[in-house]
Amino acid sequence: MERIANGVWRVRFGQPEQHTPVTLRETEIRTEQLNELKCTGTPPFSIDEVSLKETNRGVQIELPLAAEEHIYGFGLQLHRVDHTGRKKVIRVNSDPVADTGDSHAPVPFYVSTSGYGVYVDTLRYATFYCGTNLRKGDSEYKKYEQKTVGTSEMELYSRQASESNRTVVVDIPTAKGIDLYVFEGPDLATAVQRYNLFSGGGCLPPAWGLGMWYRTYSAAKREDVMRLANTFREERMPVDVFGFEPGWQTKAYSCSLVWDEERFPEHETMLGELYGMNYRVNLWEHLFLHPMSPIYSELKSHSGNYEVWEGLVPDLSIPEARSIFAEYHKKEFVDKGIAGFKLDECDSSDYVHSNWSFPDVAEFPSGMDGEQMHNQLGTLYQATIQGPFEKAGKRTLSQVRASGALASSFPFVLYSDLYNHKVFIRGVVNCGFSGLLWSPEVRQAESAEDLIRRIQTAVFSPMALLNCWRIPNPPWMQVDRDKNIRGEFMAGYDKTRDICRNLFELRMAFIPYLYTAYAKYAMEGRPPFRALVMDNPDDSYTYDIDDAYMMGESVLVAPIVTGSSERSVYFPKGTWRCFWTGAVYEGGQSYTFSPGLERIPVFVKDGTLLPLAKPQQYVADDAIFEVTLQQFGDEARECILYEDDGLTFGYRSGQYNWVKVSINSDGTIDAGRTGAYERRLYHIVGIK
Amino acid sequence: MERIANGVWRVRFGQPEQHTPVTLRETEIRTEQLNELKCTGTPPFSIDEVSLKETNRGVQIELPLAAEEHIYGFGLQLHRVDHTGRKKVIRVNSDPVADTGDSHAPVPFYVSTSGYGVYVDTLRYATFYCGTNLRKGDSEYKKYEQKTVGTSEMELYSRQASESNRTVVVDIPTAKGIDLYVFEGPDLATAVQRYNLFSGGGCLPPAWGLGMWYRTYSAAKREDVMRLANTFREERMPVDVFGFEPGWQTKAYSCSLVWDEERFPEHETMLGELYGMNYRVNLWEHLFLHPMSPIYSELKSHSGNYEVWEGLVPDLSIPEARSIFAEYHKKEFVDKGIAGFKLDECDSSDYVHSNWSFPDVAEFPSGMDGEQMHNQLGTLYQATIQGPFEKAGKRTLSQVRASGALASSFPFVLYSDLYNHKVFIRGVVNCGFSGLLWSPEVRQAESAEDLIRRIQTAVFSPMALLNCWRIPNPPWMQVDRDKNIRGEFMAGYDKTRDICRNLFELRMAFIPYLYTAYAKYAMEGRPPFRALVMDNPDDSYTYDIDDAYMMGESVLVAPIVTGSSERSVYFPKGTWRCFWTGAVYEGGQSYTFSPGLERIPVFVKDGTLLPLAKPQQYVADDAIFEVTLQQFGDEARECILYEDDGLTFGYRSGQYNWVKVSINSDGTIDAGRTGAYERRLYHIVGIK
Repeated sequence: MERIANGVWRVRFGQPEQHTPVTLRETEIRTEQLNELKCTGTPPFSIDEVSLKETNRGVQIELPLAAEEHIYGFGLQLHRVDHTGRKKVIRVNSDPVADTGDSHAPVPFYVSTSGYGVYVDTLRYATFYCGTNLRKGDSEYKKYEQKTVGTSEMELYSRQASESNRTVVVDIPTAKGIDLYVFEGPDLATAVQRYNLFSGGGCLPPAWGLGMWYRTYSAAKREDVMRLANTFREERMPVDVFGFEPGWQTKAYSCSLVWDEERFPEHETMLGELYGMNYRVNLWEHLFLHPMSPIYSELKSHSGNYEVWEGLVPDLSIPEARSIFAEYHKKEFVDKGIAGFKLDECDSSDYVHSNWSFPDVAEFPSGMDGEQMHNQLGTLYQATIQGPFEKAGKRTLSQVRASGALASSFPFVLYSDLYNHKVFIRGVVNCGFSGLLWSPEVRQAESAEDLIRRIQTAVFSPMALLNCWRIPNPPWMQVDRDKNIRGEFMAGYDKTRDICRNLFELRMAFIPYLYTAYAKYAMEGRPPFRALVMDNPDDSYTYDIDDAYMMGESVLVAPIVTGSSERSVYFPKGTWRCFWTGAVYEGGQSYTFSPGLERIPVFVKDGTLLPLAKPQQYVADDAIFEVTLQQFGDEARECILYEDDGLTFGYRSGQYNWVKVSINSDGTIDAGRTGAYERRLYHIVGIK
Repeated sequence: MERIANGVWRVRFGQPEQHTPVTLRETEIRTEQLNELKCTGTPPFSIDEVSLKETNRGVQIELPLAAEEHIYGFGLQLHRVDHTGRKKVIRVNSDPVADTGDSHAPVPFYVSTSGYGVYVDTLRYATFYCGTNLRKGDSEYKKYEQKTVGTSEMELYSRQASESNRTVVVDIPTAKGIDLYVFEGPDLATAVQRYNLFSGGGCLPPAWGLGMWYRTYSAAKREDVMRLANTFREERMPVDVFGFEPGWQTKAYSCSLVWDEERFPEHETMLGELYGMNYRVNLWEHLFLHPMSPIYSELKSHSGNYEVWEGLVPDLSIPEARSIFAEYHKKEFVDKGIAGFKLDECDSSDYVHSNWSFPDVAEFPSGMDGEQMHNQLGTLYQATIQGPFEKAGKRTLSQVRASGALASSFPFVLYSDLYNHKVFIRGVVNCGFSGLLWSPEVRQAESAEDLIRRIQTAVFSPMALLNCWRIPNPPWMQVDRDKNIRGEFMAGYDKTRDICRNLFELRMAFIPYLYTAYAKYAMEGRPPFRALVMDNPDDSYTYDIDDAYMMGESVLVAPIVTGSSERSVYFPKGTWRCFWTGAVYEGGQSYTFSPGLERIPVFVKDGTLLPLAKPQQYVADDAIFEVTLQQFGDEARECILYEDDGLTFGYRSGQYNWVKVSINSDGTIDAGRTGAYERRLYHIVGIK
């Protein structure tokens, strides 16, 4: 195995393909940060334990898998957390309805509880068989007990075989060679950090990106937008980002990327008014270009040979195409103050009522075929749109519907139309294994209760987003879509709105804590949202937990789904305290909680000094957070905050601080700063 | 294009793969019957309209698709009837949860309303893009109207493009060459017949196979089986076939293929008792062989390199493996009177809670890989099990969970665990496009109403099957599984049972009519169950109908699903009459029916003389059907019945008759026979 960086090893077999996430990457390996990670200097398994061969079908890999190992990752898996014993196909697909591996962001990377990671560098629809089958004859050497006769599929299909002698088999179609990367631990979490640093590190959103997001009705006109924008401020509903859906364009599906002056006359004036109210504006789009788009003709020769929805599919791996697309976005949007985009439909779709996208056999000018382009399109799109923001020296936090391997440094958050609350929670649990961020967005809901429960999850997630593109009025006024459109509101909706406001304010309070977690993601590759198993790979009780997760270093979130007034929460080792009441719970066991509708079960590690900001309506460019320190346990006397301007790339040249906040024995507070950033983002006001 | 048979053309490109349905076929093209079909002698499109090329990925085909064409087929598609505008992957998969092409019986064959069929001879997971995409630039030449802004996915995703310039793109991975077969019409139904005759013709079940089937509780013991068998006869519930589920074997999952003498002591005596009561016995199995199976050692060297459920996967394309497997079945089962098998799990599974089967990269002694073996396994298994019955000179009707291309001559009926009544009806509609038979089996139900509605569909389907493997007592006593197991029965279940009995008797009455429809399938390739579009390709109102179908030449079936007391029925051209009341309906329009719980909407073409048998409890070896003729309209004076011994392969050497039954002007009945079969299967008793 060839050493690529500290704790990163490569196995090369045959002649790898020209187009892979590594050959297409535009980010740098964070060598320096990798050097700071603990490392044995020995690969986690030897090359003799790996089988690699070329067949008619492509390349086949077989990797060791010990009896006690459990496997996680493979990108944004929405249907399962622990993939041991399962088959996973790494194929981009919108709204996957079953546990097949298909995902908005499939990644050919897995990590093991034994403390290592494996990345297969391919854009092919590779299949991973994670200990699904023994080799012929292995079963005869076991002892057999006759099972009771099964009378359900569950009983019949349960595995009887011992789990030794297993392997991970990887099937990579079409390829004639492959690069395999192995990431050392020593533990699962470190292997994930290593993969993220290899990918370029995590992204650092602007501070405002951590506030509340609201996407508005697709058919809204200028006056509807302004009415909503005014109402939020009047009703003191914190909102940072205002999102426009397809209706802002003259043509959508496919896209013209031109403002519709009928619905939005003098749209620049409107944008000025929104900016004046401290809203950031985000524009929906997809990249299938309508013939009437101003950049259609220029991009035609740089596009694939099939259309999607009457639109061109530009090959964004071609510098000319990239430049045309990016320059247009800079000039027309970024330079005019647009803060971000929602990059839709860049996944494919085999599962929805109307499947779409280009065929796998499509041909692109770069030489990529449709299969490869499908698995890379989301990443190419992110890199393209990131460009104008880099040039403008402004950070964005944006949305994207597809992503893939080595994408952790792009400040884009994934989303989906699946809209099942449990599935959405599982997305938060899983995204951190593969360098991804996920938004369990809220639309309307089946009831006010459902709305509140969903908002609670959103508020404790990578992006706190209400996507109200199907309803003209806020969902707290009416959850039923038809009634919402007719303007019939729920009786006593102000009570629901007040609960929502409290939750929005809770999000705003957590921004300093969250921003610090994101900084650790950017600089150390440590995911801000993590499955419980990630920090507890020795605790098998955590292996299957898909409904609770860590936010940052100290906060455990266990959302409740509508229809239940209580839930059970398992605590990993250590002592935990209720965020709301301070009550103490010992780790290694489960407790049942029924905190009422207004509260989501949230717990804090004993010994945590939690910095909470005074909620603002928005994070202005010159925002200062007034931080109160909340002590969880007597030992809670110190916390760290990340500080920079929250807006630019100055942090890359050292313009940031780590602020060490401590409570002295006399109760006074110290805030010691390390770093070169001069302004203050935090004002520590006291202890709660 | 090379002419292969009358109206069948082949295009060869490159070097086709060694293993395809055609190279593995064991049936003969029915050249003589093909010669009897109408035919222009010109392929439906020219070779210039077809593009074929080899790429890195495999072989790519592009075929013409006119604006007005609609496409059907692709095997047992359970989620859609009209595949125009859709992507379909030809990949065997158990219980497919979405409209992806995956199927228990995927077939790379489609037929067009323009009157032709296309078969791509491959075992690869080929993808068919049926007019999904235009080529780059085709949209710029259209006129655009700005759509209203969509506020739902349905609106946004709807196609705006004109549907001209379309093609069918076929992506065949791994292959270096391909054989493409084109089937002339002149119409859709004839193209289907041609495909079936090319495949070897349809199957001819034994007459008893058309009676009622009952599969019993998986955990049943000998005394439970006999109690049920006696009850059916005592209560005069017609049942022909008694099915044993996994519990008959000493080992299952995987399979030993050995009777369990604990649950079934002296099983041969038990079988003798069942035979004495005129039951046919069917045994469940799958082919993944447990190490304790008597044929394990012999088959080990003829098996794939991975196990499934601790079991060998024998390569049944190898003559030695085939012979060992088939001879064991002949000696142990067929020679001991077993009438058929249920061949389970020979599909794969990506969609169920516990995915299973061998990897696509598995290697088999024949040189087939796992992908090819997956798509052929069901057909190989059918051919293997058909062997002992051929040798014994006895026909079987059996069950199988997977099938594929060119399989129409195998007397095996497909089934699934999906258990959605609407989906199951769609299976009946679709199976006839691709040479397949499908059983919308009944298990328990959510209510007595649901049970009755499901049985109504089953009774008017290729196989009338109650699969009660999860409940020890008949479902008409208790539909709730847990209560059924506890022996708690529904109040007044005898009323439900009586309705069920009436339905079972209705099935028994239709056997002569159905048997004749199957004979047309065997000899002319005409499917016994057909979508309405098959006989009406010019009537666009039939294109999407997925909830009504033709049974035989004259009967239109429109099942009702629980929760509805009425439904709308569209009648194709012609005059139709209600089976129950004789009421007249004109074709070309829809009517609404609410026939009450005991009746399923069934209609008969005006002018039909319908032969209905006096219901028997079972079809004995020496059965004679007492047929009454029911007239639908004054012109109904003639019908045709197929006649043979109902049991052996004598019909292949001409031992069968076509019986032409006519009502003379004086009301007397003539029954003129053409053919060499001497015994009489029908006794015509009069006119109703």
